[in-house]
Amino acid sequence: MLAVALIVILTVKCSLTEGALASNSSIDRKDRNREMSLQRLQALRALMSSQRPVLAAYIIPTADAHNSEYIDAADARREWISAFTGSAGTAVVTSSQALVWTDGRYYTQFEREVDLSAWTLMKQTLPDTPTLEKWLASNLKDGDVVGVDPQTMTRDEWTPIQTALKKISAQLVPISNNLVDDVRIELGDPAPKRSHNELAPLHVRYTGRTAGEKIAELRRKMAEKKASALVLTALDDIAYTLNLRGSDIEYNPVFFSYLIVMETNVVLYWGDGQLPPSVTDHLREEGVDSVEGKPYGDILEGLKEMARELSESGDGRHVIWLSNDANEAIHRAASGSDVLKRPIDLISEVSPVKLAKLVKNEIELQGFRNCHIKDGIAVVRFFRWLHDQIDGGEQITEVQASDKLLEFRRDEKDFMGPSFGTIAGSGANGAIIHYSPDREGQQTVIERDHMFLLDSGGQYRDGTTDITRTRHMSGNPTAEQRDAFTRVLKGQIMIGSALFPKGVKGNVLDSFARHALWEVGLDYGHGTGHGVGHYLNVHEGPSGVSWRPYPDDPGLNVGQILSNEPGFYKVGEYGIRHEDLIEIVAVDKGSDHPKAKNLRGDYDGRGVLGFSTLTLVPNQRECIDAEIMTDFEISYVNAYHRRVLDTLSPILKERGLLKDLEWLEGQCIPITRK
Amino acid sequence: MLAVALIVILTVKCSLTEGALASNSSIDRKDRNREMSLQRLQALRALMSSQRPVLAAYIIPTADAHNSEYIDAADARREWISAFTGSAGTAVVTSSQALVWTDGRYYTQFEREVDLSAWTLMKQTLPDTPTLEKWLASNLKDGDVVGVDPQTMTRDEWTPIQTALKKISAQLVPISNNLVDDVRIELGDPAPKRSHNELAPLHVRYTGRTAGEKIAELRRKMAEKKASALVLTALDDIAYTLNLRGSDIEYNPVFFSYLIVMETNVVLYWGDGQLPPSVTDHLREEGVDSVEGKPYGDILEGLKEMARELSESGDGRHVIWLSNDANEAIHRAASGSDVLKRPIDLISEVSPVKLAKLVKNEIELQGFRNCHIKDGIAVVRFFRWLHDQIDGGEQITEVQASDKLLEFRRDEKDFMGPSFGTIAGSGANGAIIHYSPDREGQQTVIERDHMFLLDSGGQYRDGTTDITRTRHMSGNPTAEQRDAFTRVLKGQIMIGSALFPKGVKGNVLDSFARHALWEVGLDYGHGTGHGVGHYLNVHEGPSGVSWRPYPDDPGLNVGQILSNEPGFYKVGEYGIRHEDLIEIVAVDKGSDHPKAKNLRGDYDGRGVLGFSTLTLVPNQRECIDAEIMTDFEISYVNAYHRRVLDTLSPILKERGLLKDLEWLEGQCIPITRK
Repeated sequence: MLAVALIVILTVKCSLTEGALASNSSIDRKDRNREMSLQRLQALRALMSSQRPVLAAYIIPTADAHNSEYIDAADARREWISAFTGSAGTAVVTSSQALVWTDGRYYTQFEREVDLSAWTLMKQTLPDTPTLEKWLASNLKDGDVVGVDPQTMTRDEWTPIQTALKKISAQLVPISNNLVDDVRIELGDPAPKRSHNELAPLHVRYTGRTAGEKIAELRRKMAEKKASALVLTALDDIAYTLNLRGSDIEYNPVFFSYLIVMETNVVLYWGDGQLPPSVTDHLREEGVDSVEGKPYGDILEGLKEMARELSESGDGRHVIWLSNDANEAIHRAASGSDVLKRPIDLISEVSPVKLAKLVKNEIELQGFRNCHIKDGIAVVRFFRWLHDQIDGGEQITEVQASDKLLEFRRDEKDFMGPSFGTIAGSGANGAIIHYSPDREGQQTVIERDHMFLLDSGGQYRDGTTDITRTRHMSGNPTAEQRDAFTRVLKGQIMIGSALFPKGVKGNVLDSFARHALWEVGLDYGHGTGHGVGHYLNVHEGPSGVSWRPYPDDPGLNVGQILSNEPGFYKVGEYGIRHEDLIEIVAVDKGSDHPKAKNLRGDYDGRGVLGFSTLTLVPNQRECIDAEIMTDFEISYVNAYHRRVLDTLSPILKERGLLKDLEWLEGQCIPITRK
Repeated sequence: MLAVALIVILTVKCSLTEGALASNSSIDRKDRNREMSLQRLQALRALMSSQRPVLAAYIIPTADAHNSEYIDAADARREWISAFTGSAGTAVVTSSQALVWTDGRYYTQFEREVDLSAWTLMKQTLPDTPTLEKWLASNLKDGDVVGVDPQTMTRDEWTPIQTALKKISAQLVPISNNLVDDVRIELGDPAPKRSHNELAPLHVRYTGRTAGEKIAELRRKMAEKKASALVLTALDDIAYTLNLRGSDIEYNPVFFSYLIVMETNVVLYWGDGQLPPSVTDHLREEGVDSVEGKPYGDILEGLKEMARELSESGDGRHVIWLSNDANEAIHRAASGSDVLKRPIDLISEVSPVKLAKLVKNEIELQGFRNCHIKDGIAVVRFFRWLHDQIDGGEQITEVQASDKLLEFRRDEKDFMGPSFGTIAGSGANGAIIHYSPDREGQQTVIERDHMFLLDSGGQYRDGTTDITRTRHMSGNPTAEQRDAFTRVLKGQIMIGSALFPKGVKGNVLDSFARHALWEVGLDYGHGTGHGVGHYLNVHEGPSGVSWRPYPDDPGLNVGQILSNEPGFYKVGEYGIRHEDLIEIVAVDKGSDHPKAKNLRGDYDGRGVLGFSTLTLVPNQRECIDAEIMTDFEISYVNAYHRRVLDTLSPILKERGLLKDLEWLEGQCIPITRK
């Protein structure tokens, strides 16, 4: 799945799979939207006027309280107020204006969905568009007050707006009631209830480390920083730490919660605070003895209370550690800034759990390798099926293909669900980078003369997969398509076969993936690689491979998982992307790596890193132009296909899937130059 | 010259060529240093105690008031107080401790030069070493006051220290008298007088744009930002704007000054404020009518006065624009923070002159191309001479070689002097990245079986050169040396031949230069490219090519000049570096570029950029292993050598330098595989 997401969420939250396409009902929807939109805006403006002080502007980000990439319907406030369904965007409402800042993926969609007589689109990717804070600073006046729900903004987002407003003697104030939620109640359309689904313990045979061990390690780090408490707010951080999984957010096996780790106890804010025996038993078994449950909604009061207690404890100064992506309300509550004369000091930096889960342990890595075998079987079976259908004259739509793929994945052990919404783009749809086929409206059939781009993934108890393969359905691509397909593959190989010093940041690798494309004036508009969680979010920070450095990237290290997914998109015609997940491995002269034997140094002791490819599905031979590949690249592809075949064929045989085996064998015949 | 400098000066100032080597007199020097060092420290501590409030610590950066890379003897305060002569480092003195933070290049030198009973070395490149601000925060107490001369610290350096101290309720205060200067006077060893040498106008036939045009452009930008004044503090910014050159700092044709541009007049703070007729005539001719001279030393008072006047002018709010690398004292004075109740607003961001001079105009580019022809002649003559001497059994030392090279450059029209201290490293000296041969002490002879690394450059009225060539003096390198030489060359070619989208930042290219080395576990510990001024500083921001992004890099564009200088260094044995200057050019299908004809796109309208190599000196054929090069790389090298020969040979012929011509012809014979 596309790496661009993780980059974009550095500034705005973004979900890749939400951008719904136009359907036949869009015109009706728009009329309805217009009426509702005005009514909603009027109600919000009335509420803004009734605040004391009166709000000159109210900001509505696309965000939940956990800085999640995917948000729950309960948090879709910007969508409700503006009718704009895109996954990224920030709305600002003043007494006379209403605006949404969003990026280039959504300009057309915005104009289709939104009442443009009430709302203004701020095209944030254009150089002349003022940033939100600049716009506020030039449209408000001395003494104006801007409100925002401080749970929907991280401190890093809050600070520049506050600074810009201060300069014009205006101010940004936290409004603890979310005004959009209040308007929804007032208009009889309350926000859906937040999910608090059941929790499922994940056994140490999958996680490799008990919750007790993980918490002990956190406490060691807290001791180094002299922190009295560590406040975890990112949902995947909490799921990882406790070896628990949930299902509150689609595709992400996480659950709404907060976790506070202290020297001798931990407090889990979840649901109504009643932890079921399955959870307390699991935690006890994993060596976490003292766990207190508190209601999810009490987190801010709980933090204030903790700040007050620490402050009054009389045993010297205390420090509380929280993640730099914790929201502004959490920052304020944890420091006790509203309740204490002298607030508690905060350490606000990248969460230690983010850094811990970035580097997978050996059990997690084995799980990743294993689930990629299962996922390879499913995807191979799917493609064999799809070619069979289309060759046999069947009309298969993108949605039907996605559903069939899910069926094949369901056959695999420990499969828990898709890791994101499948991107199945046939022909011109493949060139829409954030495409996802819509179940409603007209369906696109995968034609025999189409390039078909399929980006999908699975959640397994032993790991998470994310794979993109692009195939020409009749195996007869145009010369131009073959050239582009091959150049994208060359880029993927240049990453996959790269050696590099331990500790360099992911961004230094990005250009390798683009080199073969850049040589002929082609490129792609997304990053090259994102981190992947272990049966957790398919996009996981803080490392990644993009032209922009990831600010909290601690440097690449053995045991990290990245995607390797260059692409090329010809708008209106076709899209190509090749995506593997890759594991970072240490390489020396004796390693099983194609470049190992030539090693003459280890970068002066820093150590040599390389990649091992986890994904096990061949690339379509007919689309590869061996004439523009080096000898090394040809042998690299052939060795990879050999490995795919050697790994998958015994399983296919054992399961009696002989037609699939035969198909796979044909796919893995070595490529050669003419 | 090495790109690392520009990277390092992002945090500490650094001059590459100052690191003097140990000489025989170093032991005597050390004893003398010890005695002096203690006396100097005692005097400084006494002065710190006599301040009101008393200073708990005093910080002495390596810096002048202009954030210059090379500093004048008048500003070498850290060197004087500590006896440590390295070009980079920051000293902190408390009542009981004295420390210097410096980087890995200088650890050995520090221990050799400095009285270790009085001074502590803080190895800032080690992960366990606390930063200066962290050390202060954990070694000082509530209420402590730390002093620093605010002219020796940029605001960007000031702020994190101030923030760290605030956290422990200590404070950072500006001390307007430099205490080291005061101690020097007290001990009868006053700092040398600052140079204020003559100014030389640079004719528009060299600069391509008059000072009047440049100032008009600045005023347009000021109008956009509604800035009442633009304060220029970087010496090369001022020299560029006024088309004047000076000689106050070695190798850099700049002059100590400040320039304030206002709507209708400009004020030049220089010398005693009396501008000579040659300067005023030049500026008048170039369309700058209203220039006021003021004494250099009056800048802070002048800025405060301006702030006061603007504040009292009664015509609304004013903004002053200064460069983000202006020092803290300038920031304070410009805002009038000491004299006004409501200080003037500042825009503190990258200077518009930095961005203007980054992109060379067509006249400057022609000058660059032209001076590289002249420089090529000089360097070719030098290498022919050097091989002749060594082949003839002469003992040539590194210093003699450097002097001879200067002689050859002096023969060229408009040559004004070296652009930096020549790095002439034979054998193991070539592996010392910041080596410069010392005239004192034992001299290193360039042996016939040595690799010899020569990094040098010239200032010409029409441009600045910077070239490194590495040669094996007998033409018989070891297999390992040939392999490394060739891999460095492959890296240089991968940069030199790269195509990339307009606007990408320089850092995205860095890994291309390392790829062939990384493949075998080798690397080099410096950046790959730095910007170069036009008859200005050989290191010029704000762009460059390194694994770390340059924070103010506006993106690469046509007309920029960069160095392209990968290397490899085997400590104790040899060093290899190949350095060309390269010009960024636009490339399309019709361009004279080796990859032009394959272009199929222009990156969706962004535009295709590539490089044209300015430097014209062949690489040594005997050191190139064609077996590990691709066909493209071999033809690239041969085409380059053909161009060198075609360009230089008519000139050598015309000047009757037939032996040089013959030698060059031999160097340019095409390379082939066996």
